[in-house]
Amino acid sequence: MIYIQKEITLKSHSKGIYLITSEILSDLPEINNIRVGIANIFLKHTSASLSINENVSPEVRIDMQNFLDKLIPNEKYFQHNYEGEDDMPAHIKTSLFGNSLTIPITYGRFNLGTWQGIYLCEHRINSHRRKIVVTIIGSE
Amino acid sequence: MIYIQKEITLKSHSKGIYLITSEILSDLPEINNIRVGIANIFLKHTSASLSINENVSPEVRIDMQNFLDKLIPNEKYFQHNYEGEDDMPAHIKTSLFGNSLTIPITYGRFNLGTWQGIYLCEHRINSHRRKIVVTIIGSE
Amino acid sequence: MIYIQKEITLKSHSKGIYLITSEILSDLPEINNIRVGIANIFLKHTSASLSINENVSPEVRIDMQNFLDKLIPNEKYFQHNYEGEDDMPAHIKTSLFGNSLTIPITYGRFNLGTWQGIYLCEHRINSHRRKIVVTIIGSE
Repeated sequence: MIYIQKEITLKSHSKGIYLITSEILSDLPEINNIRVGIANIFLKHTSASLSINENVSPEVRIDMQNFLDKLIPNEKYFQHNYEGEDDMPAHIKTSLFGNSLTIPITYGRFNLGTWQGIYLCEHRINSHRRKIVVTIIGSE
Repeated sequence: MIYIQKEITLKSHSKGIYLITSEILSDLPEINNIRVGIANIFLKHTSASLSINENVSPEVRIDMQNFLDKLIPNEKYFQHNYEGEDDMPAHIKTSLFGNSLTIPITYGRFNLGTWQGIYLCEHRINSHRRKIVVTIIGSE
Repeated sequence: MIYIQKEITLKSHSKGIYLITSEILSDLPEINNIRVGIANIFLKHTSASLSINENVSPEVRIDMQNFLDKLIPNEKYFQHNYEGEDDMPAHIKTSLFGNSLTIPITYGRFNLGTWQGIYLCEHRINSHRRKIVVTIIGSE
């Protein structure tokens, strides 16, 4: 029975969608010892999301970003705009995509599908340093 | 190794988005004994959601509610409308925001970001009593 | 302390939303031995989703499908369209609904609400064989 918990500060990015599977795994060598279990990856922010999607074509991430911007524009009726036009849309995008992922671990690895990668979706225009907490519960 | 599972009936609310972090924690004194672990918070309904977002400004919750109503109106082509015009939109909002959260626990507390709170999103017009199941798996 | 992990291949379906609660449970007789715990159900794909919603009326699933198609059409500006007009919309729908569910287990059963069922949302037009990994962590 193993519990691992670690806070990781991700590389900072301006607005966009980024593949961070390798960045997370490079900070988690302990995962190799887990035969079976789960990993919860929790983003401690309200204007960025985590998601799992296609891990090869960069166009997927660009199209997704453009679609999100079109779907959730800066509506004139928004009252919460202290921090600029990207403020309230960022909060809504966060709730639509979510900020917590739970992934199976099998024989020391995230048991993802062939085409799956972990996305950090930065919804603010300017760069931010984002923190995740990874909690692993599993068995040797 | 500790398992805690508890069903909690939340205060009832009519349509809107509500911060429920304190309400949940007041029913979970046992969390203080968990050094490291996870909490799964599961809402047992199909027309209300759980989400994590900004915990200070009430405008965020109002803007988000208004945006959801605009994004998911009562479409004329909906066939499922037995319970009124808020019926089918409520189901769709539920799947978009989700009804299950998994949150890390660290030294007896939900390890949330500074600005993060837990939202109950009531999608039906009339008040409903909503139930959550909280399951904690952790270590002393 | 019990860990169960199982990969299940679901019945293949063309585009649409399908109730799969019974199909999953028929492959998980071991769940009967779990008094308290959680089940993580993880879909290993990037163009299909899992969600929890209404488990009786088939109209809910039809209305939801039609709404998703209207909300996320094949935009002219999408660059990622190698596999046809349903390609990029399927990726976006996947991230909006998500592909990982965590559900409480109580006395040998998924502790779902009366009206809750597990949905497989197939976003591609043609039939695909989808795989899930179910990980159960619990106590006898």
